[in-house]
Amino acid sequence: MTDTPKYKLASRQWKSEKTIIDVKGCKIGGNDLFLIAGPCAVESEDQIDQVASYISNLGIKFLRGGAFKPRTSPYSFQGLHKEGLELLKQVSQQYNLGIITEVMDLSLLDEVYPYTDIIQIGSRNMKNYHFLKEIGKTDKPVLLKRGMDATMEEWLLAAEYILLGGNEQVILCERGIRTFDTSNRNTLDIAGIALAQQLSHLPVISDPSQATGNRSLIKPASLASIAAGADGLMIEVHNDPKEALSDGPQSLYLEQLKEMLPAFEKVAQAVNKSCSWQKEHETVNV
Amino acid sequence: MTDTPKYKLASRQWKSEKTIIDVKGCKIGGNDLFLIAGPCAVESEDQIDQVASYISNLGIKFLRGGAFKPRTSPYSFQGLHKEGLELLKQVSQQYNLGIITEVMDLSLLDEVYPYTDIIQIGSRNMKNYHFLKEIGKTDKPVLLKRGMDATMEEWLLAAEYILLGGNEQVILCERGIRTFDTSNRNTLDIAGIALAQQLSHLPVISDPSQATGNRSLIKPASLASIAAGADGLMIEVHNDPKEALSDGPQSLYLEQLKEMLPAFEKVAQAVNKSCSWQKEHETVNV
Amino acid sequence: MTDTPKYKLASRQWKSEKTIIDVKGCKIGGNDLFLIAGPCAVESEDQIDQVASYISNLGIKFLRGGAFKPRTSPYSFQGLHKEGLELLKQVSQQYNLGIITEVMDLSLLDEVYPYTDIIQIGSRNMKNYHFLKEIGKTDKPVLLKRGMDATMEEWLLAAEYILLGGNEQVILCERGIRTFDTSNRNTLDIAGIALAQQLSHLPVISDPSQATGNRSLIKPASLASIAAGADGLMIEVHNDPKEALSDGPQSLYLEQLKEMLPAFEKVAQAVNKSCSWQKEHETVNV
Amino acid sequence: MTDTPKYKLASRQWKSEKTIIDVKGCKIGGNDLFLIAGPCAVESEDQIDQVASYISNLGIKFLRGGAFKPRTSPYSFQGLHKEGLELLKQVSQQYNLGIITEVMDLSLLDEVYPYTDIIQIGSRNMKNYHFLKEIGKTDKPVLLKRGMDATMEEWLLAAEYILLGGNEQVILCERGIRTFDTSNRNTLDIAGIALAQQLSHLPVISDPSQATGNRSLIKPASLASIAAGADGLMIEVHNDPKEALSDGPQSLYLEQLKEMLPAFEKVAQAVNKSCSWQKEHETVNV
Repeated sequence: MTDTPKYKLASRQWKSEKTIIDVKGCKIGGNDLFLIAGPCAVESEDQIDQVASYISNLGIKFLRGGAFKPRTSPYSFQGLHKEGLELLKQVSQQYNLGIITEVMDLSLLDEVYPYTDIIQIGSRNMKNYHFLKEIGKTDKPVLLKRGMDATMEEWLLAAEYILLGGNEQVILCERGIRTFDTSNRNTLDIAGIALAQQLSHLPVISDPSQATGNRSLIKPASLASIAAGADGLMIEVHNDPKEALSDGPQSLYLEQLKEMLPAFEKVAQAVNKSCSWQKEHETVNV
Repeated sequence: MTDTPKYKLASRQWKSEKTIIDVKGCKIGGNDLFLIAGPCAVESEDQIDQVASYISNLGIKFLRGGAFKPRTSPYSFQGLHKEGLELLKQVSQQYNLGIITEVMDLSLLDEVYPYTDIIQIGSRNMKNYHFLKEIGKTDKPVLLKRGMDATMEEWLLAAEYILLGGNEQVILCERGIRTFDTSNRNTLDIAGIALAQQLSHLPVISDPSQATGNRSLIKPASLASIAAGADGLMIEVHNDPKEALSDGPQSLYLEQLKEMLPAFEKVAQAVNKSCSWQKEHETVNV
Repeated sequence: MTDTPKYKLASRQWKSEKTIIDVKGCKIGGNDLFLIAGPCAVESEDQIDQVASYISNLGIKFLRGGAFKPRTSPYSFQGLHKEGLELLKQVSQQYNLGIITEVMDLSLLDEVYPYTDIIQIGSRNMKNYHFLKEIGKTDKPVLLKRGMDATMEEWLLAAEYILLGGNEQVILCERGIRTFDTSNRNTLDIAGIALAQQLSHLPVISDPSQATGNRSLIKPASLASIAAGADGLMIEVHNDPKEALSDGPQSLYLEQLKEMLPAFEKVAQAVNKSCSWQKEHETVNV
Repeated sequence: MTDTPKYKLASRQWKSEKTIIDVKGCKIGGNDLFLIAGPCAVESEDQIDQVASYISNLGIKFLRGGAFKPRTSPYSFQGLHKEGLELLKQVSQQYNLGIITEVMDLSLLDEVYPYTDIIQIGSRNMKNYHFLKEIGKTDKPVLLKRGMDATMEEWLLAAEYILLGGNEQVILCERGIRTFDTSNRNTLDIAGIALAQQLSHLPVISDPSQATGNRSLIKPASLASIAAGADGLMIEVHNDPKEALSDGPQSLYLEQLKEMLPAFEKVAQAVNKSCSWQKEHETVNV
């Protein structure tokens, strides 16, 4: 009987030094805290332009935004698709921003590929092993979200599927797991961030927006993630959260993001991480 | 702000009478208990022939067997792929069995479609909404496994995605949810079977093998499912469970399956369900 | 370093034959399905008299009813305390019913002890080990509810605490575990009932009322429990569920209980269990 | 029908300013990070003396140590009971340390009361409402651990039981909740710490030792807790973790605790908290 060997390529036993992924001038997994910000979904030219302009002015280098959105209900907004991708391209060029957007299905890979700098695998696809194998054959960095029902081992085995295909640029993203307590949308597994760093050489970032589902908790959840050793954060921000077509309650107002950046920097420094975006921001604003 | 409307087409409010799906002479969702049996994965001609021959002789009409297997580890057996499909076709013709096998990814749909009578959507794909939409455009019955982290509402909304595409032949399959207690592989949500029957007109079957992960619990979990109102059962059985390439511990021995069928019939009758397979079996064995 | 040995006295390895607990003429764990019915809480003389009279007339031998109620909120009805106990005594004598009521705290044991035939340990106390030790020194049968966060092993170890004290009359009661899915109040661990029967010689009963929290699911959950091998059922029933001071939504109407008893008997017979209460009921009603 | 009103006295609506609890010169809930350290259980005079001496020398003001231990197995070490309490008293006088120890059952309250400065209610007792009511009548600060299956609302309602009794000195302690992922002992609900701070005026501290069950994760989990806004930390430390009679794997070595204190101070300062223990420690070591 054949049975499940554990992950190898994803482990610290295989590669003790930390993997650093170099993309658009950012060194993810390095000493600099990596920040991604943007709306849940691309909704309109005006929306994505406002957000892109704002975060770019803050020194943030990467924009998130969904063009194809996995939604629990078929009656919810499903994304702008091709038009959304074009809008991402437009603002990425205008503001010199890296782009991260989700490939929701293998059949959409070819369409999305040219538009994104980092391929996002959503938590709902973390156990879609056929998809992961194909992603392993691509040559762009991959952000692998943890499934909301995935154990640590299952998460690292999912990374293993991609690594085995030859793509070594995998970024792990903790985004909260599903538990009995629904007072938050999910439960951010903060110790899991630290454990993933111990078990694997891959960069580990945190998504406090999906994890909490609650704008008022983004700041403490972000600071906690930095303190626990996350290599970066992916944060949802919207120019008008009350009117957002998806995930409004967990989207920061633009000004809220700006206001919390100095706190990010302080905690980052306390754990010996640098924040180059903050420095450039200061330069920009001199 | 747009927000999530609930399921409509999947609900009893939309359609009060039970949906009955007619496939290969079985009326799934009707008064007759529907049985599927077979191995986790197709492993060889000898294996699938032994199992198919045996269950056919018991009067069982549907054979399960995976050709493409979603496995937690990339180092585990991944299925025979095309060869597995061909073997399923061969025994289905020889023993006049309906076939149910999983489509693991949308990109595999065209390959698997001609070989299967019921398209199985695995629990790991229950939230792959792009996939579900495409499945909604097909014309074959679909078995939609509940995600191991899916709430009742999310499960029915997944069915809604398929129904909205125009495919009204959706069979719901409860297969255990993930909980803190790992003494069983998953926790069979027995009351969820009854609740799904109340909320939806779609047939609901139970998979006691995935739910328990333990051969010694298949019989009580099956009897409980029948008593709770399941329209059918999908059970893993293998000619040599100790040597199975996947899910051996939860696979019944062939004789065990035979021995428990009379108990299935008794409990089914107690809740006013018939068991035509049992009748034919008796005819065969006269 | 000392570490946790597993349960011994509670195991089938220690005692292979099933434990049968003889109380008030019922043989719990024997071949006869054991039934307990009654309200969540004793509320008034009129209420408890109506319920007791009704279930007694159905042939049911045991009445449940809380005098001290553990409530999540301090502002909810907390029980009638001494007055509730006196009311239980009164109807138990009038209708010749066995009584089961909860001892909510060790400090209440002496007060409750004379009024109850079976000492109920609530799920919230299943890990109160000091309490369990003291209960082990008593000489009455104990109904040990599974904690809503207790693994199978923790449940059996809780029984072990009582058995070690010298009290061998422990009845295990599955009442649903807490999971991410809140569409039911708890998730009835039906395979856990079967597993407990395999691992332990102690009687195992099911509480479908706490498990589902939903009156419309009591019947299927009860039938499933019987089919899975439960030795008995504890069911909440109220003369006026809409006005119940606690757990109204999960309380059956009296007539509903009566109507489902024949189905209980049919499924019980299908798994070779007898239902003496049903026989007496028929005698009574001739 | 009566139904569950939510907490009042525990809420920020009732009392908007933060509650500060003054005990043995510490102001818990104030601007100063509150630290408790000590072994899981008091094991011997030598053990508790070594630990007490060491933490006192670090400037830490409060010693934890169980005399009555709730253990999952009756065969595990259950604590030294009276002797353990006497040893706590002895070292508390010798090193001028505040004491926190668990009252495992109401019947043990009188025995433990004189020996402790803060009454600890364990997570297994968080829903023992009779006990909570009685604790509400005492006049010492209470540390209320969150139940491992308790929602945020249930936790605050448990505090409400104590507050209603008249005892306003309740400290909330997050210690990890039970989830499907057993790669850590429990899942530290870091966002829950921040949410509790928003919903309630009561001090909230974190127990990274119980939450992770893993010595190597105590530092990141502690730093994350501070960053998320915890008012303090309770950390298990042992003079010889490999030989500890309980919870060895999650106990820090004495030197490890010392080494991580400067990091605690840095992160505390980053979120504008002070660390007076650190200052005194420096004075002591000049």
